[in-house]
Amino acid sequence: MKTPTLIAAVMLSGLTGLATAAEPIQPIEPVKAINLAKVELGKKLYFDPRLSKSGFISCNSCHNLSMGGTDNLKTSIGHNWTQGPINSPTVLNSSMNVAQFWDGRAADLKEQAGGPIANPGEMAFTHTLAVDVLKSIPGYVNEFRQVFGTQELNIDEVTDAIAEFEKTLVTPNSPFDQWLLGDADAITQSEKEGYELFKNSGCVACHNGPAVGGTSFQKMGLVAAYETKNKAEGLAGVTGKDADRMKFKVPTLRNVEMTYPYFHDGEAATLTDAVDIMGRLQLGRQFSKDENAKIVAFLKTLTGDQPQFLLPILPPSTDATPKPQPFD
Amino acid sequence: MKTPTLIAAVMLSGLTGLATAAEPIQPIEPVKAINLAKVELGKKLYFDPRLSKSGFISCNSCHNLSMGGTDNLKTSIGHNWTQGPINSPTVLNSSMNVAQFWDGRAADLKEQAGGPIANPGEMAFTHTLAVDVLKSIPGYVNEFRQVFGTQELNIDEVTDAIAEFEKTLVTPNSPFDQWLLGDADAITQSEKEGYELFKNSGCVACHNGPAVGGTSFQKMGLVAAYETKNKAEGLAGVTGKDADRMKFKVPTLRNVEMTYPYFHDGEAATLTDAVDIMGRLQLGRQFSKDENAKIVAFLKTLTGDQPQFLLPILPPSTDATPKPQPFD
Repeated sequence: MKTPTLIAAVMLSGLTGLATAAEPIQPIEPVKAINLAKVELGKKLYFDPRLSKSGFISCNSCHNLSMGGTDNLKTSIGHNWTQGPINSPTVLNSSMNVAQFWDGRAADLKEQAGGPIANPGEMAFTHTLAVDVLKSIPGYVNEFRQVFGTQELNIDEVTDAIAEFEKTLVTPNSPFDQWLLGDADAITQSEKEGYELFKNSGCVACHNGPAVGGTSFQKMGLVAAYETKNKAEGLAGVTGKDADRMKFKVPTLRNVEMTYPYFHDGEAATLTDAVDIMGRLQLGRQFSKDENAKIVAFLKTLTGDQPQFLLPILPPSTDATPKPQPFD
Repeated sequence: MKTPTLIAAVMLSGLTGLATAAEPIQPIEPVKAINLAKVELGKKLYFDPRLSKSGFISCNSCHNLSMGGTDNLKTSIGHNWTQGPINSPTVLNSSMNVAQFWDGRAADLKEQAGGPIANPGEMAFTHTLAVDVLKSIPGYVNEFRQVFGTQELNIDEVTDAIAEFEKTLVTPNSPFDQWLLGDADAITQSEKEGYELFKNSGCVACHNGPAVGGTSFQKMGLVAAYETKNKAEGLAGVTGKDADRMKFKVPTLRNVEMTYPYFHDGEAATLTDAVDIMGRLQLGRQFSKDENAKIVAFLKTLTGDQPQFLLPILPPSTDATPKPQPFD
């Protein structure tokens, strides 16, 4: 008499998510172990434009947490209105990336955080000057001391705190994740058909895992060449290998409805365009209008709960704080 | 036998604030009647860089609510890194101003809100284009309909909602207000002495009321001329009267510790400098180092509770949304 037990087990699995264990995409999990005090410090630093030469550009300027962790521009605006070389990827769920930046040149979020501060075309500061600013502000000095337990205040701590905040920027509870976890009605029939197309056409070969991407580097223009005026060379710039030209980190598709425009050059304005180009250039497949629409509908089910937090209030500068130099 | 009753009344008045009724500065009151739905809409608009041509500059860029409602720059950075002509005044408690902008050219917050959107050196957009963007975003269309009860979405509603949000940006509960309301220990002896100097030297002639300013226009350089390279002419630009040259709206001193640098040209980097210059040029008085320090100590007691709210999440653009043009 094992039948009732089996039925119960199957029903239970639908509720607990066991039924989706075989899916190539897994739900985003809420943040677990974090250092709360470090997160609060990192949040302030993330929003603090005093980490830039101008006093005007913060991490949040180009990875705007009101807008899916991006700036929604093709390429970003940096110091002195410099046009950036590449599209700003979303900071949301970025802790799940195999490496950071489109070319993976930073191993992790901590290493990434130091990049834009010192990039002349972005925040245009130096690590030393940024730390000098923070050291002149008692509110920060006290908070660093509490978090790190030392009198020292250095760039290593700054980027560590920013990374700790960024680790909290996950987006669980999307309709698709609710469906993965057993709520059969969380997505529509069209969206399910879009997911089936996404799986059966080969998209999941690269866009898989909890972040639906972010785990590998792939050549942009696999079946047919990708035409762009953008000069980014991808992974080759890091490895020096010719075979790595035009290889970029596969972007996460989580919250992709919010992270337009698409691709490393930001040249795909809409999801419809992006799906069409990916189909043709990466999979050698021309999606019909109906197929494209269903895949786009599926992609929009990947929008999760956006991080909710109080806008941080920054400790004020003092008479001793080096002045920003926006126009020098 | 009336003595005990009198003593009780005096003690009571100390607790209820009656004793401070004669003071030239009154406490900031918390926000009362507001339209909550309109505030939520206005908060989104305040943080939305899609109201600018570049898609990069929002109200919060120059009136940053993490930094006392200012950008802490001498003059602001606008579209294409344009150097602004004047210091960005704080948005905090700005609903108490007699008029808006340093020269009072906008009667109220609603009128002010339309200015920067269409200013070529600031957000560089037009009201029509800004409204076109909002109309293309279903999340906004629905919210405007709920708030205003019409199918129309126009610039009048946009600025109305932004102004409603700005009305909530008051900063009650500063140490000085706690003292005004009867807590004798809320400020130190030095701070009290600074307040006495502030009153007795004539500062309160202009810096009075709940906002400690904002209620009148006064000539910058009354006793001695104010030397500056800044070209702003003040009220004369509005009235056309030569007598109004260099007359500017008296700024609020609420949260002045956070709203550096000071004056319409942003040329006073510190409160010490600002107090010194004001003393000499407006009052014909050279404050001693000790007097200056006490006044500065008093001014720092005017920092109130900063507005606390969740960072708004903006509704995403659609395929139909006009694209930002940061580099055109």
